[in-house]
Amino acid sequence: MRTLYHFWLCPFSRKVRIALGEKSLPFELVFEKYWQRREEFLHLNPAGQVPVLVEEDGRALAESSAIVEYLDEAYPDRLLIGFDATARAEARRLAAWFDLKFHHEVTRNLLDEKLLKRFMGMGEPSSEAIRAGRANLRAHLAYVAYLTERRNWLAGDDFSVADLAAAAHLSCLDYLGDVPWDDHETVKDWYVRIKSRPSFRPLLADHIPGLAPPRHYADLDF
Amino acid sequence: MRTLYHFWLCPFSRKVRIALGEKSLPFELVFEKYWQRREEFLHLNPAGQVPVLVEEDGRALAESSAIVEYLDEAYPDRLLIGFDATARAEARRLAAWFDLKFHHEVTRNLLDEKLLKRFMGMGEPSSEAIRAGRANLRAHLAYVAYLTERRNWLAGDDFSVADLAAAAHLSCLDYLGDVPWDDHETVKDWYVRIKSRPSFRPLLADHIPGLAPPRHYADLDF
Repeated sequence: MRTLYHFWLCPFSRKVRIALGEKSLPFELVFEKYWQRREEFLHLNPAGQVPVLVEEDGRALAESSAIVEYLDEAYPDRLLIGFDATARAEARRLAAWFDLKFHHEVTRNLLDEKLLKRFMGMGEPSSEAIRAGRANLRAHLAYVAYLTERRNWLAGDDFSVADLAAAAHLSCLDYLGDVPWDDHETVKDWYVRIKSRPSFRPLLADHIPGLAPPRHYADLDF
Repeated sequence: MRTLYHFWLCPFSRKVRIALGEKSLPFELVFEKYWQRREEFLHLNPAGQVPVLVEEDGRALAESSAIVEYLDEAYPDRLLIGFDATARAEARRLAAWFDLKFHHEVTRNLLDEKLLKRFMGMGEPSSEAIRAGRANLRAHLAYVAYLTERRNWLAGDDFSVADLAAAAHLSCLDYLGDVPWDDHETVKDWYVRIKSRPSFRPLLADHIPGLAPPRHYADLDF
């Protein structure tokens, strides 16, 4: 069986889960406490990070963007990166926007502080980081609004890895109740469309022991 | 004329410069003080970062990995990402290793502290960060040695974006005299082969005003 090593609220793991779902590829989820640096896991990915996808023939693939690119090449029936070089460049630019810039300015400040520190036994959350994360989130949502007001999906006409990456990050923050959805109607409409995709449903069923999501988290109409 | 907005010792800009050279695509370099957030530049890349590649027809492409992917799709005569899905996944995994992990643990601690802070007027370098960067660099070089002892190029048989990314980061640190090349003979041999590629020569001719590189920086045999 194809196996995905993941962490529940890791946006990079979520991106790959949605990609596998979009491609209707069956897989088994294995929860990996990657910060414990288990030796067998380091053999799969010397970087010691999730997600890692192990194909049925035993090949281990690491690094979320590399995995999504691989899936598009190995299972091209339903392309996720776009259909011509320019559209693909835009989808990749925006995927990197969320995986690097949004992650650095928002996700890290909220998710790592509020959740990962506790899991890893790294002490109390920093209220300064949380304040910065919330302020940065508002600025980023304004950019997502700029895109959703002008385009069908974030990178253009087609659903793409840009939507995967954005939805992966925002869904983690939404689990924490941190997304002010009512600030931008077009962003909320975009996320409603994401939530109603079959590939996204399993993420809405996630429940982390001891940390219930807010009621609206799994509602398709919120 | 095709134009690349760049910063001299930005590893991401360097990666794209080498890629353009490998593909024999002529381009003009424009030095962008991206931290000044010039309005025209933000129109090209709302993230406000270099590199940005502007094609002859005016299309602006941002985000170094997206640019290299684009170049491989638009100019496929000389592929830089590999030839089958598995090899491409490995090349992308390692490119991300250098652009994310190596950058976070090494480049940022050395280059940003010793150079960028001065350029941006952000105060004195942190000696703690520089010590951490040097210690992390030794650990990373051991991993590069592990790869170069087993493979022709970093990701396998073929020269790839993994070599581009690694060489881009290491060449910036080498300009600062920070790379202990004599620790690992196979790593040095690999870098000699990189240095002798025509695509790499322009980088060896870089001279930042007020900051001369060490004598060995441009030597092919060092």
